[in-house]
Amino acid sequence: MDPLPLLQELIRCPSVTPAEAGALGVLEAALVPLGFTCTRLRFGPPGEEVENLFARRGSRGPHLCFAGHTDVVPPGDLAGWSADPFGAEVRDGVVYGRGATDMKGGIAAWIAAIASLPRDLPGSLSLLITGDEEGPALDGTVKVLDWMARNDHRPDMCLVGEPTSKAALGDTIKIGRRGSLNAEITLHGIQGHSAYPQRADNPVHRLVRVLHRLTAEPLDAGTPWFEPSTLQVTSFDVGNPATNVIPGTARARLNIRFNDLHSSRSLTAHLRAALEAEEARYDLAVSCSGEAFLTEPGPFVEALVAATRAATGREPSLDTGGGTSDARFVAQHCPVAELGAVGATMHKADESTPVAELRALAALYARVIEALLAQEARA
Amino acid sequence: MDPLPLLQELIRCPSVTPAEAGALGVLEAALVPLGFTCTRLRFGPPGEEVENLFARRGSRGPHLCFAGHTDVVPPGDLAGWSADPFGAEVRDGVVYGRGATDMKGGIAAWIAAIASLPRDLPGSLSLLITGDEEGPALDGTVKVLDWMARNDHRPDMCLVGEPTSKAALGDTIKIGRRGSLNAEITLHGIQGHSAYPQRADNPVHRLVRVLHRLTAEPLDAGTPWFEPSTLQVTSFDVGNPATNVIPGTARARLNIRFNDLHSSRSLTAHLRAALEAEEARYDLAVSCSGEAFLTEPGPFVEALVAATRAATGREPSLDTGGGTSDARFVAQHCPVAELGAVGATMHKADESTPVAELRALAALYARVIEALLAQEARA
Repeated sequence: MDPLPLLQELIRCPSVTPAEAGALGVLEAALVPLGFTCTRLRFGPPGEEVENLFARRGSRGPHLCFAGHTDVVPPGDLAGWSADPFGAEVRDGVVYGRGATDMKGGIAAWIAAIASLPRDLPGSLSLLITGDEEGPALDGTVKVLDWMARNDHRPDMCLVGEPTSKAALGDTIKIGRRGSLNAEITLHGIQGHSAYPQRADNPVHRLVRVLHRLTAEPLDAGTPWFEPSTLQVTSFDVGNPATNVIPGTARARLNIRFNDLHSSRSLTAHLRAALEAEEARYDLAVSCSGEAFLTEPGPFVEALVAATRAATGREPSLDTGGGTSDARFVAQHCPVAELGAVGATMHKADESTPVAELRALAALYARVIEALLAQEARA
Repeated sequence: MDPLPLLQELIRCPSVTPAEAGALGVLEAALVPLGFTCTRLRFGPPGEEVENLFARRGSRGPHLCFAGHTDVVPPGDLAGWSADPFGAEVRDGVVYGRGATDMKGGIAAWIAAIASLPRDLPGSLSLLITGDEEGPALDGTVKVLDWMARNDHRPDMCLVGEPTSKAALGDTIKIGRRGSLNAEITLHGIQGHSAYPQRADNPVHRLVRVLHRLTAEPLDAGTPWFEPSTLQVTSFDVGNPATNVIPGTARARLNIRFNDLHSSRSLTAHLRAALEAEEARYDLAVSCSGEAFLTEPGPFVEALVAATRAATGREPSLDTGGGTSDARFVAQHCPVAELGAVGATMHKADESTPVAELRALAALYARVIEALLAQEARA
């Protein structure tokens, strides 16, 4: 089975988050003939439900899940495009369209890979496809995983089909992601006259000390699998127009990208300790958009690496860089890694993928499916 | 001569800066009969001239100048007043009105003091009265002093009649004032994504380091005559709403109140050194509203202290606290000190002075005039 027509059908569904736009129906139509049972799952507040799809073939272990999303980011300024973002035009061996790499291409390649393999593989296969990855990600992957756990569909391992390859197909496998935490600090002092600071308590000075404490030393030196965690103060706001007034309040916001030496809990304690040292009144608001996770290299990752090497002739590097992805939710349930197309054009104008590379991805995924199911069956 | 009627006449001129409102005419009418030659001096852009008055009696040395201002701050919310701010009502031995202490009372007392003394005092007396002390102070005392210097009227010593007394008349003489400097720092970095700080250069972190450097240690430990200088960061502004963006620019403003160990020049160099340590691009804007000055205790101050002690029975303390005053301009020309009424109600609603205290101030000023002219004549 050629993945190209399926990818073209998917691109022609303008499924900009949160629109489903028929993309899940296209998948159902492709999966049912391959023996999959499809379940549409809607989560979210009434009128704003997110459409998701769970499809499974077989009920034995090992259970390998493929996770992906059919929603895409908006095309942006159409003047930047040389093709219709939802036209799926093939020109000079390249297919153009929003989602070509991120990540309708990955889904089409995975389904083509399944179609190319015999039906009597060991274990069982499933697909977790969400329409809410590029959006708030509240009613997508995380809720489908909960539903799967409650309904005897917890996978033994999962591959996320995000476009992880950098320069050439298969050169990079992501085995973890950093976490991300935002914090807003409000420090309260005592307002007063600049000429009489002894009668005031300058919260700007205190906040400067807190932030100096937090930024003077790196959070860690990195790990074998992760770069050092980073803390960036993204804003500091007082808004005091009067030069002869010491303000009563100072605010700062910061963003922490952290590896698996930390958690939102340990970092909140770290921030609180830096604040407590001031013995001043403060407010601290923390929100974590994703904890760090790592799938420690072991049999699962080794099988993935071996299959990639065999299919592409390249030695994939194991990586944990970049932003966050839905793999952070999967990591709560089973070992997970991410492997997919070359992501160079993702989110850009003229997003596209060479047809030959799409087909090579399908061949790579076929090797991956065989290797992972065999590896788990052996284990 | 009783200073009360003269003060009442002055209060009845609503000379809120920059309005002259007849106040200088009242003074001329009082001074000419006492033998003074009056010169009205107008400075400033056409249509916005500030009215000033220079009056002198005699041309011999020593030349003792009295500096003051007839302009007053606005009355503010009239609901806070129990009397007409420009009515000069006397109730229970207290005269009410804007300027009663700051500082029409001081001027009235000084003129009454002159009237009470014989005409054949040694040396000569002058009055430098401006209408631009509570305002920008650009076209008042500073320009009259220049005019005096150019016209053979440079004084040998000067008393500024600001209300320096704290709890009781004569308890405090100001012999200097701190300087005040405002600075705005703009630090330029390189904008970028919070997840990839290695590709950006966070100006907030740099500015936190600069401000930590500037605030970690006091500027000095004070001097025998001055409190320690203070540096207060009054605002820090980035205004970056995006948590995933490292901003390109960060700004802070600070105010320094400094003693005579520093000057605007040395402090600018100090700020620049703290900035240069970052090796980042920055803008520094500095404005100095007044250099620090000190009239070192010596014969002039000692004579003033002795006269105050003799007139009031109190031992005056020599002080350099508080904000700035026009004495900073006088200090460029001759020894200067400040001595006047109890300032408790200055700039407040129901500004007022007890009539007995006003008369006591006139008696004190008479002693001061005698002592200073005698002291200088001896020297």
